[in-house]
Amino acid sequence: MGFEVGTLLTKMNILSTTSDHASVVALNIFIALLCICIVIGHLLEENRWMNESITALVIGVCTGVVILLVSEGTSSRLLVFSEDLFFIYLLPPIIFNAGFQVKKKQFFRNFMTIMLFGAVGTLISFAIISLGAISIFSNMNLEPLKIGDYLAIGAIFSATDSVCTLQVLNQDETPLLYSLVFGEGVVNDATSVVLFNAVQNFDLSHFSASVALQLVGNFLYLFISSTILGVVAGLLSAFIIKKLYIGRHSTDREVALMMLMAYLSYMLSELFDLSAILTVFFCGIVMSHYTWHNVTESSRVTTKHAFATLSFVAEIFIFLYVGMDALDIDKWKIVSDSPRTSIGVSSILLGLVLAGRAAFVFPLSFLSNLSKKSPEEKIHFKKQVIIWWAGLMRGAVSMALAYNKFTRAGYTKLRGNSIMITSTITVVLFSTVVFGLMTKPLIRLLLPSPKHLSRMVSSEPVSPKSFLVPLLNGQDSEADLGAHMPRPTSLRMLMTAPTHTVHYYWRKFDNAFMRPVFGGRGFVPYVPGSPIDQSNHQWQ
Amino acid sequence: MGFEVGTLLTKMNILSTTSDHASVVALNIFIALLCICIVIGHLLEENRWMNESITALVIGVCTGVVILLVSEGTSSRLLVFSEDLFFIYLLPPIIFNAGFQVKKKQFFRNFMTIMLFGAVGTLISFAIISLGAISIFSNMNLEPLKIGDYLAIGAIFSATDSVCTLQVLNQDETPLLYSLVFGEGVVNDATSVVLFNAVQNFDLSHFSASVALQLVGNFLYLFISSTILGVVAGLLSAFIIKKLYIGRHSTDREVALMMLMAYLSYMLSELFDLSAILTVFFCGIVMSHYTWHNVTESSRVTTKHAFATLSFVAEIFIFLYVGMDALDIDKWKIVSDSPRTSIGVSSILLGLVLAGRAAFVFPLSFLSNLSKKSPEEKIHFKKQVIIWWAGLMRGAVSMALAYNKFTRAGYTKLRGNSIMITSTITVVLFSTVVFGLMTKPLIRLLLPSPKHLSRMVSSEPVSPKSFLVPLLNGQDSEADLGAHMPRPTSLRMLMTAPTHTVHYYWRKFDNAFMRPVFGGRGFVPYVPGSPIDQSNHQWQ
Repeated sequence: MGFEVGTLLTKMNILSTTSDHASVVALNIFIALLCICIVIGHLLEENRWMNESITALVIGVCTGVVILLVSEGTSSRLLVFSEDLFFIYLLPPIIFNAGFQVKKKQFFRNFMTIMLFGAVGTLISFAIISLGAISIFSNMNLEPLKIGDYLAIGAIFSATDSVCTLQVLNQDETPLLYSLVFGEGVVNDATSVVLFNAVQNFDLSHFSASVALQLVGNFLYLFISSTILGVVAGLLSAFIIKKLYIGRHSTDREVALMMLMAYLSYMLSELFDLSAILTVFFCGIVMSHYTWHNVTESSRVTTKHAFATLSFVAEIFIFLYVGMDALDIDKWKIVSDSPRTSIGVSSILLGLVLAGRAAFVFPLSFLSNLSKKSPEEKIHFKKQVIIWWAGLMRGAVSMALAYNKFTRAGYTKLRGNSIMITSTITVVLFSTVVFGLMTKPLIRLLLPSPKHLSRMVSSEPVSPKSFLVPLLNGQDSEADLGAHMPRPTSLRMLMTAPTHTVHYYWRKFDNAFMRPVFGGRGFVPYVPGSPIDQSNHQWQ
Repeated sequence: MGFEVGTLLTKMNILSTTSDHASVVALNIFIALLCICIVIGHLLEENRWMNESITALVIGVCTGVVILLVSEGTSSRLLVFSEDLFFIYLLPPIIFNAGFQVKKKQFFRNFMTIMLFGAVGTLISFAIISLGAISIFSNMNLEPLKIGDYLAIGAIFSATDSVCTLQVLNQDETPLLYSLVFGEGVVNDATSVVLFNAVQNFDLSHFSASVALQLVGNFLYLFISSTILGVVAGLLSAFIIKKLYIGRHSTDREVALMMLMAYLSYMLSELFDLSAILTVFFCGIVMSHYTWHNVTESSRVTTKHAFATLSFVAEIFIFLYVGMDALDIDKWKIVSDSPRTSIGVSSILLGLVLAGRAAFVFPLSFLSNLSKKSPEEKIHFKKQVIIWWAGLMRGAVSMALAYNKFTRAGYTKLRGNSIMITSTITVVLFSTVVFGLMTKPLIRLLLPSPKHLSRMVSSEPVSPKSFLVPLLNGQDSEADLGAHMPRPTSLRMLMTAPTHTVHYYWRKFDNAFMRPVFGGRGFVPYVPGSPIDQSNHQWQ
């Protein structure tokens, strides 16, 4: 333990001026760019084409050009992409916030469909991309790639970009689509990372039924244990904050504890080699269901917006970085003598991504529709097209996985690896900018009046309260389900509306056993003489 | 630009399990310890001796012991202290939050006294500790230190620990003392860092009047330009947010922009070799005066608590780290053969710290009292004792400076340097724990009923509003000064109450010129049809 004393000595002289001057300059420019992205994103908010990710990407590319010119072609980057930075600092707030703000009812009501898309769909997409790559690339003028490389390519390009999805779809306007595409995105992230690790670790030269079974077993183990860890961490935070009335003395302690516990769940999951993304996602869900209701009013407002802000900044940071990184000269040098190959590989990969996603969205939507009775819950063809399209973006996860696979210890010098890296960048940029730009207009075209439609599609009551209570605006205004749904009295009911019934019994269990222990909605952390008591009445 | 590609390659393998396993374990333990500190701090809140810093220090030392035992005496630390970590990540939120939450009226009303204590006082303390060290250490059995080393020791041990002060004194209970001790602490931090850099850079072998003049000029330049930078950054953020109505579309953008602009001011100041601490402090003050009033209600609550939480976590982090670091075995090995010298040096330094602070608190308080007419504003002897005592703690700034001076490039192996490092640790631990433990009881002894006294001492109206508006609870409830104070009509008035008069004219200027441009209290970011409008009435 204890990293290296060396770093202590080398990092010692920030005070003595000159030393780390370049890094301070870089950090300054980066922060300034982040500010600019935010302001421009605000100004373009009403624009029907742009969104914040594309703005950040474009600004990143422009900055890259400027740096290239200033440094006379030696570098285009301010900071070097480190997987650590991405997986340890940027991804956790994004995914946690997604879990924290997700409309839980929508998410759980569509749980089966989401799992179908996220897990089975990703496997289908992985298989198609891998097989396609094997059959096409082996006939091209490329250095021979191993079977493991092809499978890795499948995993890399199956990872959709849930971050970008969040910005293209709107939770309030199209709740069903949002929960499907976004929920799928999270499960998909987890699945593709798990797949990637699996194909790296398993001995693939002797592929057999038992290896396949092991892979499936490994996946199930990771999925279940990651979820349990996240749920336990969330419940623990709820229990501690409820039992100790942390808010009695200090709001800051509550907020700090929530933040640290969430991060701890992520790091613990990383420690046990589980899927940290899944863990922190479920931790976010549990925290918003229990812990969030146990804290004081000001902590609620603070956590809600602080987590959203952190996530927002992390997203912009990633896109800005990817934009800058795209122009990194070292990677392009090696492929510059064969531009046709490079463009060919990129287009083939884009085609495979399109095909791989189409191959599961439409069949699985059909399957999912079979189990639904009411026409509102079915996924119509137009919506299937949107789901297909909105999940085409490839993003930071793909980049991180590609770096991990193809740049080990100076390995990039190999031509095949360089082509893979540059192709990944091309696919990410193209899909984010072009597909991303077309998503907003596509949704308007296919669902002409989303505001109006959403109220029809959504079974969520649009509470007028949210206009009276601005501070809680946007918070999941989950009304008691019991009032809206007939009580299921027969087994037939369970067969016809399985998810609803499960949800109903869950509510019963929640009210009878979970809430008395872990708090949650309706729990008032009453402290004699404190203003909390009054404020609560004020807010009702 | 672009750090090193090397770091990319070495940091590549977090996904491939084993590699950084130790660092993931360390991070997990550290986060878990932070959580434990928060919970224990909460449980000990009512305790009359303990405070959060001491708890964190003690837990840090205990963990250090455990790690020493587990690692069989090779290491006591989970993470290696890097000045970067401290100066780039931990200090900015603490100091910014201090500026953001400081009771501005108290601060500016006592501005002259604070400057007297912070700048002149630190110089006196620096001179006494340096001279004391020269006269005593040169007669001891130590390797000869250079004149630059003695001056560095003076600067290192003049840096009080404003972090610890914040936790010992209470802004609401003893506002005058708090603003004096804390304000002094911030100016003192800046002064001692500037002094430290000055004695490092200047050629001290030929000390003359012109060098002294240069030093003074340098100090003034740093002080003024740092302040201006902070003020400009704050005003810019206020202007942008007001002009563009950022809150119209998204609360998160406002919060993100405030955070990033504050951090940008810190980093810019670092870039121009100014005093980043002063810059970010004044940026915090300006932001709380203008920007904070321009944002939406939820952003206000969020920034207020989010900044406080970040600062809170950073503080605990520092103390936890210092506690762990204290047991670092390498440093103690070299001095273990001469324990008497080590103890001697530490006690002498502690004595010098006590004397150096006494040498300016009492005389300068006397001077300050001469200019005050009303007995409430004078600093009585009992309060002088508290001011003296509350500023005795030495903390992370001293540690960082000591590392910077005495551990350059393996330099620690020299016996003299080792003794200085271990003595700094001893002084920091002893002063924080022993002096810190005795501060709360001392205040109770000298100011028997602080709650009652504070209302007498404070000229701040204790607004009953804060009980009706829990979300704004604790916010600087700055009432309009004009109503409380007679209008100064003559020059005599200006002579008798100079600060008040300056404050009065500042208010006039503020209302006439600054607020129309930069917003501030009373500015309502009206957006047609938005709920903000209603909420504002609700809050009035």
